[in-house]
Amino acid sequence: MNKENKLIPGLPSGFEDRWNKKLSLKKKLIKIIENNFTKYGFDPLETPSFEISENIGSFLADDDSNPMSDVFLFEDGDKNITLRYDLSSSLARFVAQNNQQLPSIYKRYAIQNVFRNEKAGNARYREFTQADCDIVGNVNPAQANAELCNLIASTILACGLKKDQFVVNISNRKIVKGLIEELKISDEKQTKVMRAIDKLDKPGFGLKGVEDLLKKARTDISGAVTKGADLSDGESSAIIDFLKIKNLKELKDNLKNPLSREGIKELEDLLEVASYGDYLDQIKTNFTIVRGLAYYDGFCVETNLKFKATNNKGKEVDIGSICSGGQYNKLISRFKGIDIPGTGMSIGVDRLLFVMMQLNQIKVDEKKPVIVCVMDEKYLKNYYEILKILRENNINSEIFLDSKKNLGKQLTYANKRECPVAVICGENEFKENTVTLKNLLGIKGDNNQKTVKRENLVNEIKKLI
Amino acid sequence: MNKENKLIPGLPSGFEDRWNKKLSLKKKLIKIIENNFTKYGFDPLETPSFEISENIGSFLADDDSNPMSDVFLFEDGDKNITLRYDLSSSLARFVAQNNQQLPSIYKRYAIQNVFRNEKAGNARYREFTQADCDIVGNVNPAQANAELCNLIASTILACGLKKDQFVVNISNRKIVKGLIEELKISDEKQTKVMRAIDKLDKPGFGLKGVEDLLKKARTDISGAVTKGADLSDGESSAIIDFLKIKNLKELKDNLKNPLSREGIKELEDLLEVASYGDYLDQIKTNFTIVRGLAYYDGFCVETNLKFKATNNKGKEVDIGSICSGGQYNKLISRFKGIDIPGTGMSIGVDRLLFVMMQLNQIKVDEKKPVIVCVMDEKYLKNYYEILKILRENNINSEIFLDSKKNLGKQLTYANKRECPVAVICGENEFKENTVTLKNLLGIKGDNNQKTVKRENLVNEIKKLI
Repeated sequence: MNKENKLIPGLPSGFEDRWNKKLSLKKKLIKIIENNFTKYGFDPLETPSFEISENIGSFLADDDSNPMSDVFLFEDGDKNITLRYDLSSSLARFVAQNNQQLPSIYKRYAIQNVFRNEKAGNARYREFTQADCDIVGNVNPAQANAELCNLIASTILACGLKKDQFVVNISNRKIVKGLIEELKISDEKQTKVMRAIDKLDKPGFGLKGVEDLLKKARTDISGAVTKGADLSDGESSAIIDFLKIKNLKELKDNLKNPLSREGIKELEDLLEVASYGDYLDQIKTNFTIVRGLAYYDGFCVETNLKFKATNNKGKEVDIGSICSGGQYNKLISRFKGIDIPGTGMSIGVDRLLFVMMQLNQIKVDEKKPVIVCVMDEKYLKNYYEILKILRENNINSEIFLDSKKNLGKQLTYANKRECPVAVICGENEFKENTVTLKNLLGIKGDNNQKTVKRENLVNEIKKLI
Repeated sequence: MNKENKLIPGLPSGFEDRWNKKLSLKKKLIKIIENNFTKYGFDPLETPSFEISENIGSFLADDDSNPMSDVFLFEDGDKNITLRYDLSSSLARFVAQNNQQLPSIYKRYAIQNVFRNEKAGNARYREFTQADCDIVGNVNPAQANAELCNLIASTILACGLKKDQFVVNISNRKIVKGLIEELKISDEKQTKVMRAIDKLDKPGFGLKGVEDLLKKARTDISGAVTKGADLSDGESSAIIDFLKIKNLKELKDNLKNPLSREGIKELEDLLEVASYGDYLDQIKTNFTIVRGLAYYDGFCVETNLKFKATNNKGKEVDIGSICSGGQYNKLISRFKGIDIPGTGMSIGVDRLLFVMMQLNQIKVDEKKPVIVCVMDEKYLKNYYEILKILRENNINSEIFLDSKKNLGKQLTYANKRECPVAVICGENEFKENTVTLKNLLGIKGDNNQKTVKRENLVNEIKKLI
């Protein structure tokens, strides 16, 4: 290959490499999340990244004319296959396919990557990790949904956020659905109305933005125009008034239609069961929560931070919900011969990671190795013996892999690599049956080196790491 | 949606769902693998599933006319992007991009899924998990490659395979390359020759199959014809004779060309360093190992089972190598301004899983929850109190989520779900401050139920799980 044709390394937009502290933190968060999901009695499930396109459809799309515009779709023989955009649609397919083998109430967790072919932004990627818990089956919704709320709160706390840093906002889609039906808004406008409401807390929207989307159209700061739901002034202001309601009492005074009342009752029952648990203080009713995905039809939840995060340019950004979900009664019944409701929640692991990296609230152990330096090539076998002892004692460790380099270069490497300790042995040490240990994390200038008996190698190192 | 239009759930071919014991085992294997990689001083790296197509190319292709035929490729604006088919090509891109920030010797591990758009078979999937370790930088190849061999052997042993169940086969591509050059086989034929040799241990090939591929063409049992490398009888038989060589002495007697001698020397140096470690018994030289991927140019390794696995139809199958790799000196230098060699290995986690599921040699803990039954709805709050205590004590547990179902139905669920213990409390228990525990894993017919003091709840349950 000639020089002119050489490649420029880079990633497609919306994708990110992770390593060092960031990845160690991600692994730690996933471990905490998985342990908590297991503690709550959820079973793991792993489904493939690809699904047959028609099986999962796309419930994401803002663009009605091309519902597959925001997914990665691939021709596969006489079918199309799609990289999953969430884990719920794959779960629905899995349950429909394996229902006979599953318990009557199926509680599953999945921690996997999902793919969205959309514009990337602050802590928004085209591939990201979701950690989902779902409960599928005929259950008491108050119990199931309270369980999800407790699970969200306990998991987020276990991940290191503090009680005053986040809120689990809950509502029930029936409440706003009842209002929409009371206003006799036509079916085809309903989805647009829901999506408009869902935008309320998105950057640059607010009540004014929602109102524009409920009426003719909204023009954003760039001048781009989004068509609205074309509601009348009266319809629109009824919805805007609803969005201003702050508590259940006020809600009950204002909404008398049966569907809204049903939603309110479900919310009250959930709060009753939640009051038996430890996390009621984290859970708040918020009637503006409706969720963007089309398949939710009852309880819905969004978990929001009470502070703003900053992006890598130091600018404050609203990173949105770090854990969302809701009840879906018709997602699984799209398949033949089955009609089971479900409810679930999904933690945006990479968003949570983005926040926790900034907060620096939890300790991350990168598990860097002790390094055995090679001072003199003729003792190579002896250095490997030391390495063997360290590994037998479960001490993360490595030997320097180029015995031709001098000790200075080896230590430069060890420092850049953040090794905690270097084992340094030369003729003296091998003659006297000792080892010299250098504490690489010690204060510069201090005497960070000591020679100990060979038999104390493991114990002395354990003191330093 | 009307009944006729309902969906039939299913997966595209070559993809698989995993749950229950199989997934618990996979998670356990990954944990073991990751711990061992860390113990050997490798740092984690996570790269996205997608790469810019030209950055990773395709080193897989058997089909020269369409090198992208076996990858998943998508249009993305003015570029194409490809789902990674291995982790090495992503590593090369990553190192080229971030070289300044990395230590002079970069040891990374990655455990991620890769995608191949090829025909699926026994324990071969279109998406599968690889666990890779690579060492990038200017190192002593004998040390680096011996480290990889030790790492492979120790990891596979830690995963539960026994010493007599597998072999780490090693060779060096220079040995056969030297022979090919000695025979003056033209450059354009060399890749075909390498690929022909690589097929030796594939089902239905053997020496005869390789010979056909070295000459005009090979016709398989279905009648399909694969074009060969078009070697002369003399060239072909020289290579076949080489493939029959069993040990280093014989090899040295037969191959006198400089490149082959260089390869042999590298192999001897590696074995010397490996002799300082614990795993020399697992490592065998095998000069027929050349690896299919085009970028290897020195040391190469394949880890093979010493027994046949059986597929789900009970038929014996050869599942191929469970851990392969080798040295690549030119993979990273495809990028501008960088020229660093690398060497690495990759465990086929799903293949290993396939084998370990059959062997049933290691214990898998599915961590199923204790279930708190709801005997009487009026005590719901009390049941949640019990649940809270269990979870506070880190006992995986759940409450039955439909308080309307009778105890029989709850226990049927608990049995199907494989809960170890059911906590059963009614009016008596709450009055007398006791709990009744039912051991659901006990022998049928035995009295598996006992009532204990409430204060002993946690201790008594810990005895049963």
